[in-house]
Amino acid sequence: MYSFRNDYSELCHEKVLSKLASINRKQFDGYGEDEITLKVKNKIKSLLNNNNVDVYFISGGTQTNLVSISSILKPYQAVLSADSGHIATHEAGAIESTGHKIITLKPNNTGKIKASQISQIMDNHFKDEAREHTPQPAMVYISNPTEFGSIYKYKELKEIKEECEKNNIPLYIDGARLSQALASEKSDIKFSDLVNLCDMFYLGGTKNGAIFGECLVVINDNYKKDFRYNLKQKGALMAKGFSIALQFEALFENNLFLELGKKANYNAKYIVEELTKMNIPFLVEQESNQIFPILNNTLIDKLREKYLFYNWQVIDENYCAIRLCISWATEKDIIKEFINDVKINI
Amino acid sequence: MYSFRNDYSELCHEKVLSKLASINRKQFDGYGEDEITLKVKNKIKSLLNNNNVDVYFISGGTQTNLVSISSILKPYQAVLSADSGHIATHEAGAIESTGHKIITLKPNNTGKIKASQISQIMDNHFKDEAREHTPQPAMVYISNPTEFGSIYKYKELKEIKEECEKNNIPLYIDGARLSQALASEKSDIKFSDLVNLCDMFYLGGTKNGAIFGECLVVINDNYKKDFRYNLKQKGALMAKGFSIALQFEALFENNLFLELGKKANYNAKYIVEELTKMNIPFLVEQESNQIFPILNNTLIDKLREKYLFYNWQVIDENYCAIRLCISWATEKDIIKEFINDVKINI
Amino acid sequence: MYSFRNDYSELCHEKVLSKLASINRKQFDGYGEDEITLKVKNKIKSLLNNNNVDVYFISGGTQTNLVSISSILKPYQAVLSADSGHIATHEAGAIESTGHKIITLKPNNTGKIKASQISQIMDNHFKDEAREHTPQPAMVYISNPTEFGSIYKYKELKEIKEECEKNNIPLYIDGARLSQALASEKSDIKFSDLVNLCDMFYLGGTKNGAIFGECLVVINDNYKKDFRYNLKQKGALMAKGFSIALQFEALFENNLFLELGKKANYNAKYIVEELTKMNIPFLVEQESNQIFPILNNTLIDKLREKYLFYNWQVIDENYCAIRLCISWATEKDIIKEFINDVKINI
Amino acid sequence: MYSFRNDYSELCHEKVLSKLASINRKQFDGYGEDEITLKVKNKIKSLLNNNNVDVYFISGGTQTNLVSISSILKPYQAVLSADSGHIATHEAGAIESTGHKIITLKPNNTGKIKASQISQIMDNHFKDEAREHTPQPAMVYISNPTEFGSIYKYKELKEIKEECEKNNIPLYIDGARLSQALASEKSDIKFSDLVNLCDMFYLGGTKNGAIFGECLVVINDNYKKDFRYNLKQKGALMAKGFSIALQFEALFENNLFLELGKKANYNAKYIVEELTKMNIPFLVEQESNQIFPILNNTLIDKLREKYLFYNWQVIDENYCAIRLCISWATEKDIIKEFINDVKINI
Repeated sequence: MYSFRNDYSELCHEKVLSKLASINRKQFDGYGEDEITLKVKNKIKSLLNNNNVDVYFISGGTQTNLVSISSILKPYQAVLSADSGHIATHEAGAIESTGHKIITLKPNNTGKIKASQISQIMDNHFKDEAREHTPQPAMVYISNPTEFGSIYKYKELKEIKEECEKNNIPLYIDGARLSQALASEKSDIKFSDLVNLCDMFYLGGTKNGAIFGECLVVINDNYKKDFRYNLKQKGALMAKGFSIALQFEALFENNLFLELGKKANYNAKYIVEELTKMNIPFLVEQESNQIFPILNNTLIDKLREKYLFYNWQVIDENYCAIRLCISWATEKDIIKEFINDVKINI
Repeated sequence: MYSFRNDYSELCHEKVLSKLASINRKQFDGYGEDEITLKVKNKIKSLLNNNNVDVYFISGGTQTNLVSISSILKPYQAVLSADSGHIATHEAGAIESTGHKIITLKPNNTGKIKASQISQIMDNHFKDEAREHTPQPAMVYISNPTEFGSIYKYKELKEIKEECEKNNIPLYIDGARLSQALASEKSDIKFSDLVNLCDMFYLGGTKNGAIFGECLVVINDNYKKDFRYNLKQKGALMAKGFSIALQFEALFENNLFLELGKKANYNAKYIVEELTKMNIPFLVEQESNQIFPILNNTLIDKLREKYLFYNWQVIDENYCAIRLCISWATEKDIIKEFINDVKINI
Repeated sequence: MYSFRNDYSELCHEKVLSKLASINRKQFDGYGEDEITLKVKNKIKSLLNNNNVDVYFISGGTQTNLVSISSILKPYQAVLSADSGHIATHEAGAIESTGHKIITLKPNNTGKIKASQISQIMDNHFKDEAREHTPQPAMVYISNPTEFGSIYKYKELKEIKEECEKNNIPLYIDGARLSQALASEKSDIKFSDLVNLCDMFYLGGTKNGAIFGECLVVINDNYKKDFRYNLKQKGALMAKGFSIALQFEALFENNLFLELGKKANYNAKYIVEELTKMNIPFLVEQESNQIFPILNNTLIDKLREKYLFYNWQVIDENYCAIRLCISWATEKDIIKEFINDVKINI
Repeated sequence: MYSFRNDYSELCHEKVLSKLASINRKQFDGYGEDEITLKVKNKIKSLLNNNNVDVYFISGGTQTNLVSISSILKPYQAVLSADSGHIATHEAGAIESTGHKIITLKPNNTGKIKASQISQIMDNHFKDEAREHTPQPAMVYISNPTEFGSIYKYKELKEIKEECEKNNIPLYIDGARLSQALASEKSDIKFSDLVNLCDMFYLGGTKNGAIFGECLVVINDNYKKDFRYNLKQKGALMAKGFSIALQFEALFENNLFLELGKKANYNAKYIVEELTKMNIPFLVEQESNQIFPILNNTLIDKLREKYLFYNWQVIDENYCAIRLCISWATEKDIIKEFINDVKINI
């Protein structure tokens, strides 16, 4: 059985492992105050062309989201998110657990929200005389790519950021698969653009070659003070912080993070091209490493004999969109085998 | 500079690293539902002679404490802890952040609490007619070893557990350094005894040879239901849960966890014996891998030229107790060098 | 200016005030442990034909909702509510502030939810293998009447309650205007039926003749233990609890609470009948004391010169549904004057 | 039986009741946006000689404390309080329920804290390199009078306030019995001084002649923004806010609030003087309306036949300090009767 369920089925890239092995038995300061962490922070600043950002390494995505969002909001404030957003659908109420409502927006069918939706929510709230009877919308959460694998174009992000600025609220980008977005053929955003396009974001390691770990970048000065308290209080300040920093050191060497993203995207695209030749339609256009072919149920059952994947959306009695999540570790031969298995069973 | 500041300065034991390397590029199910996790859970059950416990792997100690304690308590309930307890002093208000008060007990000078203290708090609370004006004491937190490196004897733990049962409240043991406690020459507790001595405990990996990771064992059936929801909601359900399980697999092979604990304890004891020969007193008796020699300030300053360690408690104008935390990775030669440096500078 | 904005514009019914005056300077025990509170609790039990319920008096509706819901749910659990429900729209995130997500259901256009909607949510959740990645639906919140003034029929409530029982989750009824529901000509529910139709409910005083105060009734034994701790911790245990009990004593004498509800409903119905004669349509059918005539904007502007009311829903360019909330204190003459003002301005 | 248990046993002063009766059936805007509330807010500003403060009316003391403190603190911050402080001892963990630790200070035996204690906590915290491992001390809570009835002198308060300013943290005063403090013969503080001596305080109504209600005054501009959201979210924004404002209108007429405080204090002092003549000692000096005579147990038992009061502190086998809390409603004849009952039973 081969799994297309997700991109975190394999432990890590070999370069990550050898980087870990390289420091064994050396001593480092705890809680991210060591020299490796400092060095990797500087590397990130250099990649972002910005020395003013703050950088933290956190063990997982849900934790990064809950620490970040709860650090920004006042008790009575809420975060805006697409209704398909990860915080709204797959984090077990982590944000609500910190006391905050998520105000959900109906995105278009690719999971992306628009600046105009933010504008509408903000205007409606503040023109209401009894506004204090509803939570105050106070920040925007998006992920890039979205849960549908779609990516934001520069112009779209710029419009969202400007709308946020107009309303004096921050924009936070969940980048669990940010490498895949940046590496997308469809993307016109560079890594260093992000410091101008949002107030805080994280670059995911878990879904792109690390054993675990996400790299949070705080851009807006307003949210920097005392951030380590937030981390510690939420159980997110790791004793051996250097173990995450080191993995990112490996991922940043020769832009491995982008190479891995590119590889996953490429293989995803390759499947799309080959299935399209067989007249198989897709739920949404491929832009990163997640694809959603619409297959008939017989074919799906047949494929399940060899592959693991999630059913995503029932189309009708006979058809269903499935999700294939292509990993940085997925090799071309398994891609070809899968395509062939579709071909002979269609 | 050599650091005696803590026992999490080194990445991990070589066997942990080679265990990780052994599975690279293989695929595993996410979120701890994989075969490795299952296998290691079974190994733990076997070590505990108990098939009925539930086992979870969590990234760090503060996170494990906050998930566990908040999963047990109702909103209006409080946890009892020694006032030197980790949750009361070094977790940045993580427990209060989940809504609960910590009721602190003055322990004796070794950081241990007694059954009679629990009894007193419980009796006072429930005999108060206006009891609902104070948080209800509803569980007991201890760590073994304590923050002073002291360990609980079987009889002491048994008395605490029985007092808890009498009051129908659970006992939770923070085992960040549990291996060191179990491996202590002074300990009369076996690993498998724990299933009878408490309701929930964790065995620490971070401070005993793992890169990261703690192993939580839920014994009492009352606290098992829906536990994975608690984990996910607090950001504690790791995507690659197998990466922690695997490290514990290494730690359990040939009882490596106990061997590492024994080594650290032995080296701690060796320093104590040698310094005692120099008439250096200690704040508390050595029982595990933390020791607290009382040194004069001139000697402390001199030692700081080569070693890192924390000042623990000012004794008087001229003397201070320092903490030396001996790591599983600390080798005999550095121990001898340190002893010698004390000798020549005393 | 006369206000139809809400039913809490007037201080209280004269009988409430004279009941308060009757005990002045007498001494009573604090925090609801006094003889008046006991007497009124017994009165309620008698009205409900049930000696087994627990009764509490709380200062306001949002507070009652947040104490009740947070007392029932475990940290990872969520409450189901119509998306027009008060907790979802007008309580400033009070429920989320206690850590819980509100899962919203699209109700029909009268604001009522159906048993089948609960069933669907529950089934979807528990058949999901990865269910712990979403908050667990664990109780149902409805209000009777709804935000649209519509009321639940016995059969509808029974079906909802049975669906809850099938799923082993409780049903909580927000009864801010429960008197008006019970007094409705359309209602086939008696006050005493409620002990069989839900697990917890409150009967509102604030919107039905009291200065302030809601009466919470806990029916299900599972939710009774230690309830006073919840009250105290949320700031909801009033020092002079007897001041609320006393107001309810007045409201229960000669069924004043039902009489006031009946009066408000009757006046609402009268407006509906008269406006219907003028061919004015309504957004929803009148069932209690809130009505929603659809008026053209010119008429609305004209009426605003003499009356206060809320615009509820824009129908089109020229028409809008307004909300008229008829108070227990609203007298027939003002009702007639309003009708006449519509007539001459239509 | 006559109760000296507390000062909230009687409903309210007659002038409060007649003020309520005076507006019956008139209509007012909801949620504190009415003309009465506005008028009384202006009255308070005038009494404080300060037009810049914000004023809110809240139903009870615990609620006022929890809204205020949670509105000021960031998630990782803690509040300093005497260990005998009401928030630390009698609010069922209300502050912890909002996520914050209370750092307790050992006060002197009168329940008062000193500026130097604040200084010490702040210095210790910020000089710690690992400060983010403990909650950040970020505001100071005191009550005036304290739980022992003692009052702060101008100089003491000034020193505390200046220490707070030096550390850039706010001072909050719980004034549940502030009228009694202001009316104390021992006090050198005027009501209008408070705007210079703290950042936020409340003046209690519940314990000084109102049915219910506390008046919160926000002085520091930093804590004013969006305060009504905090109130609503915590269930503290009353529908009929005017019903509290109106009670304070009565209390402010001819300084009734000070007159009632003076009366209670005077009667307390009278008991002290008479019992002192009988050589009865007191636990602490009388400064407001709470007194703590040390009586032998036989006398205590005898007095319990006619009076209700709390045992406060066991002195030895034979003696106990009891608390007598003198109400604004306690009349001279009962005071004399009590003194006589002591005299004949001593």
